[in-house]
Amino acid sequence: MRNTIPPGGAWGLAPGPRNTICDVAGIRVGHRSLRGTGEATGVTAILPHGGDLYRRPVPAGAAVLNGFGKSAGLVQLQELGEIETPILLTNTFGVPACATALIRHAIATNPEIGRSQPTVNPLVCECNDGKVNDIQALPVREADALAAIAAAAEGFEQGTVGAGSGMRTFGFAGGVGSASRRVALEGGTGFMLGALVLSNFGEAGDLRVFGDRVATPDATPAPDKGSVIIVLATDAPLDARQLTRLARRSAAALGRLGSYIGHQSGDIALAFSTANVVDRTDNADIHPATRLNEARMNAFFKAGVEAVEEAVLNAIWHGAPLPGYDGSRLPSFRETLRKR
Amino acid sequence: MRNTIPPGGAWGLAPGPRNTICDVAGIRVGHRSLRGTGEATGVTAILPHGGDLYRRPVPAGAAVLNGFGKSAGLVQLQELGEIETPILLTNTFGVPACATALIRHAIATNPEIGRSQPTVNPLVCECNDGKVNDIQALPVREADALAAIAAAAEGFEQGTVGAGSGMRTFGFAGGVGSASRRVALEGGTGFMLGALVLSNFGEAGDLRVFGDRVATPDATPAPDKGSVIIVLATDAPLDARQLTRLARRSAAALGRLGSYIGHQSGDIALAFSTANVVDRTDNADIHPATRLNEARMNAFFKAGVEAVEEAVLNAIWHGAPLPGYDGSRLPSFRETLRKR
Amino acid sequence: MRNTIPPGGAWGLAPGPRNTICDVAGIRVGHRSLRGTGEATGVTAILPHGGDLYRRPVPAGAAVLNGFGKSAGLVQLQELGEIETPILLTNTFGVPACATALIRHAIATNPEIGRSQPTVNPLVCECNDGKVNDIQALPVREADALAAIAAAAEGFEQGTVGAGSGMRTFGFAGGVGSASRRVALEGGTGFMLGALVLSNFGEAGDLRVFGDRVATPDATPAPDKGSVIIVLATDAPLDARQLTRLARRSAAALGRLGSYIGHQSGDIALAFSTANVVDRTDNADIHPATRLNEARMNAFFKAGVEAVEEAVLNAIWHGAPLPGYDGSRLPSFRETLRKR
Amino acid sequence: MRNTIPPGGAWGLAPGPRNTICDVAGIRVGHRSLRGTGEATGVTAILPHGGDLYRRPVPAGAAVLNGFGKSAGLVQLQELGEIETPILLTNTFGVPACATALIRHAIATNPEIGRSQPTVNPLVCECNDGKVNDIQALPVREADALAAIAAAAEGFEQGTVGAGSGMRTFGFAGGVGSASRRVALEGGTGFMLGALVLSNFGEAGDLRVFGDRVATPDATPAPDKGSVIIVLATDAPLDARQLTRLARRSAAALGRLGSYIGHQSGDIALAFSTANVVDRTDNADIHPATRLNEARMNAFFKAGVEAVEEAVLNAIWHGAPLPGYDGSRLPSFRETLRKR
Repeated sequence: MRNTIPPGGAWGLAPGPRNTICDVAGIRVGHRSLRGTGEATGVTAILPHGGDLYRRPVPAGAAVLNGFGKSAGLVQLQELGEIETPILLTNTFGVPACATALIRHAIATNPEIGRSQPTVNPLVCECNDGKVNDIQALPVREADALAAIAAAAEGFEQGTVGAGSGMRTFGFAGGVGSASRRVALEGGTGFMLGALVLSNFGEAGDLRVFGDRVATPDATPAPDKGSVIIVLATDAPLDARQLTRLARRSAAALGRLGSYIGHQSGDIALAFSTANVVDRTDNADIHPATRLNEARMNAFFKAGVEAVEEAVLNAIWHGAPLPGYDGSRLPSFRETLRKR
Repeated sequence: MRNTIPPGGAWGLAPGPRNTICDVAGIRVGHRSLRGTGEATGVTAILPHGGDLYRRPVPAGAAVLNGFGKSAGLVQLQELGEIETPILLTNTFGVPACATALIRHAIATNPEIGRSQPTVNPLVCECNDGKVNDIQALPVREADALAAIAAAAEGFEQGTVGAGSGMRTFGFAGGVGSASRRVALEGGTGFMLGALVLSNFGEAGDLRVFGDRVATPDATPAPDKGSVIIVLATDAPLDARQLTRLARRSAAALGRLGSYIGHQSGDIALAFSTANVVDRTDNADIHPATRLNEARMNAFFKAGVEAVEEAVLNAIWHGAPLPGYDGSRLPSFRETLRKR
Repeated sequence: MRNTIPPGGAWGLAPGPRNTICDVAGIRVGHRSLRGTGEATGVTAILPHGGDLYRRPVPAGAAVLNGFGKSAGLVQLQELGEIETPILLTNTFGVPACATALIRHAIATNPEIGRSQPTVNPLVCECNDGKVNDIQALPVREADALAAIAAAAEGFEQGTVGAGSGMRTFGFAGGVGSASRRVALEGGTGFMLGALVLSNFGEAGDLRVFGDRVATPDATPAPDKGSVIIVLATDAPLDARQLTRLARRSAAALGRLGSYIGHQSGDIALAFSTANVVDRTDNADIHPATRLNEARMNAFFKAGVEAVEEAVLNAIWHGAPLPGYDGSRLPSFRETLRKR
Repeated sequence: MRNTIPPGGAWGLAPGPRNTICDVAGIRVGHRSLRGTGEATGVTAILPHGGDLYRRPVPAGAAVLNGFGKSAGLVQLQELGEIETPILLTNTFGVPACATALIRHAIATNPEIGRSQPTVNPLVCECNDGKVNDIQALPVREADALAAIAAAAEGFEQGTVGAGSGMRTFGFAGGVGSASRRVALEGGTGFMLGALVLSNFGEAGDLRVFGDRVATPDATPAPDKGSVIIVLATDAPLDARQLTRLARRSAAALGRLGSYIGHQSGDIALAFSTANVVDRTDNADIHPATRLNEARMNAFFKAGVEAVEEAVLNAIWHGAPLPGYDGSRLPSFRETLRKR
C-alpha cells in the first residue's frame, strides 16, 4: 500500500517508487527509538550517500524559517555550502550527545581531523518532544546516535519512530514523514526530489488537508509551539545558492498545512544535492562542476513545496497514539478520521 | 457591503471596522492610476502617519521572501530598522521616478537633507505589470508619485487601481488588496494589525480559496512569475526585530493561497509599527520606549498570516477584467465565479 | 610613474601591470565628471566584460558591511548571484537617474525585456558628496550615466574624477581608487584580482598608512560619515557563494586604514568573476562550470584585503584639492605630505 | 601594573579601572584550565549578570564574520535577540559537553524547562587548539564547564588560561584577552564598553601592533587558520539590532591587527547589554524599555573596535610559551620582544 493521506488525489506531481527521500539514489535513513517509563524519544539519521561524508561532502543550503531552535552545524553549512557528516535528528537536549557521536564517527575514518586536517562540523537538528518524553532525563546517548546511523537503509518507517517518537503535529501523534516527487525539465532531463520532515508543529485545530480543516478530538486549544525540521534532497546539480533558495520555499508548505510559523517553533530547512560531490583529497586548484540552469528552478520549487506538504501529512498518517507525559494522550490521525 | 470573498466564514480572527490597513490609526493610502493605449499602471502610496516621516520615522522590519525584485530602500531599512518616507508601490521600471519623487518630497520639508542632515532613504517596491502595460514606455513620472501621496486617505479603492492597475494574481485581474485583524492579548490589551498587498503572483490554476482550487477559465498554464509586495502595520509596540519576524511569516500566507514562491517572483514583506515614534530632533542620549512581550508574538503572527491571505483574496475580489498587452484578456475573479 | 603611496614597500603581493581593476581581462572603467558652481559630482561605470551583460551576466556576490546606504539592485544580486548590467557609481541622489539609464541601456539591445523576457536589475551604488556638491540639485542625468558607460576603457583616471569628484576620505579629497594583485595558487594556476573603490569614509585624523597615522591639517574633527563602495573582480572561477565570502573580507581592509565602519556610512562590497559566464539563450537544463577549490580561498582573501587597502590609498594619492560647498576646502593627501 | 602592550600610548579612548570586560558592572569571568600530557585546553565562562539568566535574559546580537565554526546557540540568539545562559568558550570538540552542562545548569534552578516552560538555548563558542592540545581526546567534561562558571569573578587571568590554554595568535601563544573603554556621549551620559576575546587567529608574521609588523621568530609561515570569538558588553541600553551592528564592527579590529579573516577561521562576534533586562515571569503584555539614540552609535563603534584590538594584544601580551603537540613550541610575545 502506498503511504498517502486519503483520498490523496490532489497532488500535481508524481512521486518516485518509494515516495520517500530514498528515491534520491544513494540516500539512506535509519532510526533508533527509545521507549520506557516517561521515555519516548530517539534519533533519526539521514545519510546523503554511502561514502565518507567528511572526505566527500555534499553541496547544501539551509534556511532558518524560525530560529527558536538549538540545531548544531548551521553556521558552517551556510558559510561553506556543504554537509560533511550524516544529518542527525533528535530531541532538543539530545543535540550534544549526537554531535559528539558525529565527531567520533568522523574521526574514526579520518584520524587527522583536528590535526593536519580541519575539524569536523557535526550537523544535528532537533524538536522538543517534552510533552510525551522526559526531556530532562537526557536519555539520548552517543551510542543511540551511532545505532541510528548503523540502521540506515533505503526502506524506513515513518510516524512515531526514531526522532519522531515523541512528536506531535497539529495535535496528532507523529513525527517522521517523507515523500518524493519526479522533476521533469523542459530540456528533457529528469531528476528526483525527496523530502523528510521531523514534524512537531502546528496548533491543534489548524490542520488543513487540501484545505479541509481536520481538528483533533482534544478540545484544548494550544499555541503553535514545537518545531519542524525539513530535509530536502535531489540528484539534480543545484549549487549551494540554489539549494538555499529551495530550502526557503518550505515556508509555503507550512502555510498550506495551516501553520502560521509560531513564535516558539524552531523551523529549519536543509537542502542538499548528491551531484557535484568532490573528493577533498583532489588537490587541483579548479574543479569541474555542472549547474542547473536557473530558469529551471521553478520545477524544483513546486516539487519541494508539494513533497514537504505530503511528508508532514505522512508523518501523522503513520502516527500511533501516544501517552502524554502529563497523563494526557496524543491521538492518532487515523483513529480521528474513523471517529468522524 | 463588507469586502470579502464569499462565503467568508472561515476566518479565525475578527477584522477592524474597515477591514483595511487604515484600521491602524493614522495610516492613509492613496492611488494614482494611469490609463491609456497600452498603459495600465500607476502608483500606490502608504503613509504610516500624517506627520513628517523623515523627522519622525517609524520602526520597521523587512523580509525578502524571494529577491527577484528591484525594490529601493531595503538595505537601509534593514540596517536602521525604520522607514523615513512614504512607502510607494509601482511597476518595476517606475521605481526610479518614485524614488526621485520621495527625495524631493522629503527635501521640501527638510531643507538640510544631504547637507547638515543625513540623506534620505526612499522606499519603493514594485511588481511587473508588463503583461497588460507597456512597461518599456516608463509612463510613471515623479508627478504621479506625488499625486498618489496627495490622494492618501483613510478610505481607498482595491483591485485594479493605482500600482495594482496592471497586476494579475493566479491568472485573475487585480493587484491592490487589504485586510485587518484585531489582536487581543492575554494581558487584556488590544491592538490592530493591517495588511496591504500589491499582488501579482501565482500560477493560473493554483489558487486555493480556503483549500478549494479556483482556476481561471483561461486554459493556458503559466509559471509562477510576477511578484508580491506585502505591507504589514500595527499600532502595537513591536521593535524592528519583532517586526522582521512578523514580516517573515508572510510566506505562510502565500503558501495557503497555493503559491510555491516561484523563481521569477520578487516577494518582499515590510512591517512597521506606529508606536514608539521618536522625533529625530530630540537630542537626548537615551529615549524611552515600550516593547511587546515576546511571548505575545504568536497573536501577531496568526493575525498577520490571516490578514495577508485575505488581502490577496480582496485584491482579486475587487479586480476588474483587463485587456492584455498581447491581445489576451485577464479575467476577473467574480465573473469567473458567476460562470461556474 | 606607478601609482602608489610612498614608500609603497610594504605590500605582500605583486600587482598586475596596470595595478587597477582592469588587470582582470575584459574589464573597462569610464567616468563622467560634472563640474560647475556648487557642482562637483559625476558617474563612474564599471563594465565586467565587453558583451551584453543582460544576456551574459557575470557570477557575483555582495556584502552589506553597513547598510546606511541607498544602493539599487543588491536584493536581486544576492538572490540570483549575478550582475546583469554595468555597475554604476554616483552620488546618493543620482541613483534613480542612473538606474533609469541602465534600464533603457539594457532594453536598447534586448527589446523583449519586461515582455517575453524578465525585467532587468540595474545595479547602482552611491556615496554622499554633499560636502562639496549641491546634492539637492540632482545634477546627474541619464545622459551622464550613458556617457560614463560610453567612456569605458582599460585605462582610467583615479582620484577626484567621475563619481569620486566630490568625495573625501579621512578628511582628504579623493574618491575613485583602484589596485590589483596577482594570485598564484599551490596547484600552479595563476589568476588576477582587482579592486576599485568609491571612497568617501573615515574620520579625519584616523587614517593609518601602514600603521602611521596621517592627519589632515584641518583641525576640525568629524565623525566617520560618508560611505565606501568596494568592487572586487577576478578571472578565477569563484561562484556566487565564494564571491560573497570574498566581498565580506573587505571590512578588514577598512579596519587597517583606521576606520571603525561608522554609523552613517553605507559600506557595500560587490565581487564578481569573469569566469563561467553563460549565455541566457543557452536553453540547456544543465550548464557546465568550473569552481575554485575552496581550500584555495585564502589566496583570494589576502589579495582582496590588500587590493582594497591600496585602492583606498590610491584614491587619496590621486586626489586634487576641492573647495567645500560650505566655503571650507578639502586638502589633498600629497600637499599634506609636502607640508609635513 | 596595568596590562597593556608597550608603549600603549596610541589608544584614543580611556579604559575602565580594570581594563577588562568586568568594568561593565555585574559581569564576571571564570576559567577552568586543563593541563596534562598532550592536554592544554579548558573552558572560560562569561556571566552577563549575577542572577538567573534563563529567567532574566540579556538583550544580545551576533555577527558571523566567518562561519567556519561550530558554535552552539547562535540561531536562536539571532532570532530572539537575547542570551539566556552563561557564555562558555572552549575548544572545538568541547562544545557538546559545555552545552549539556549549560542545559543541566539552567534546569537546576528552573525545573520547568522543557515542560511548562520553553527549552533553554545553551551558548557555546569555540576555537581549535589542536596544535598544542590532543583535541581528539575530548578532555573537556561537563564538570569542567560547571567549574568555570563557579570560578567566575570580577578579576580574572588572561593569556594561556581557560579556553585560551592552547590558543595561538599570529604565531604567538595566548588566547584569552580583554579590554574596556569608557563611552562619553554628547548628551552628558557615560557608559562602559568591554570586550573579551578567545583569540586563535592570524598568519604568523602578519601581526600589526599600531602598524608595526611583529613577526614570530619561527620562520615557518602558516595560513590564517584558527578562529576568534569576540564578546562585547555594555551597560548602555542598546537593543538587539544595535548590538548586532556593534558586533559586526569587530571585523575592522581584526583588519587593524593584520588579519584578512582567513578561510578556515570561525570568527564570531557576540554583543550584549546589561540594560533593559526583563524578568520573564513579568507577564505584562507590554514592557517599558529605554533605547540608545541611534545617532550615538558611533561612540560605541569606535570604542568597540578599539577594545577588541587591545583585547587581542592583551591575549598575547599575557601568553606563556607552550609546547606544541607536534614537538614544536609556540613562543610568547614578550620573549620575542626581548630578543629583538
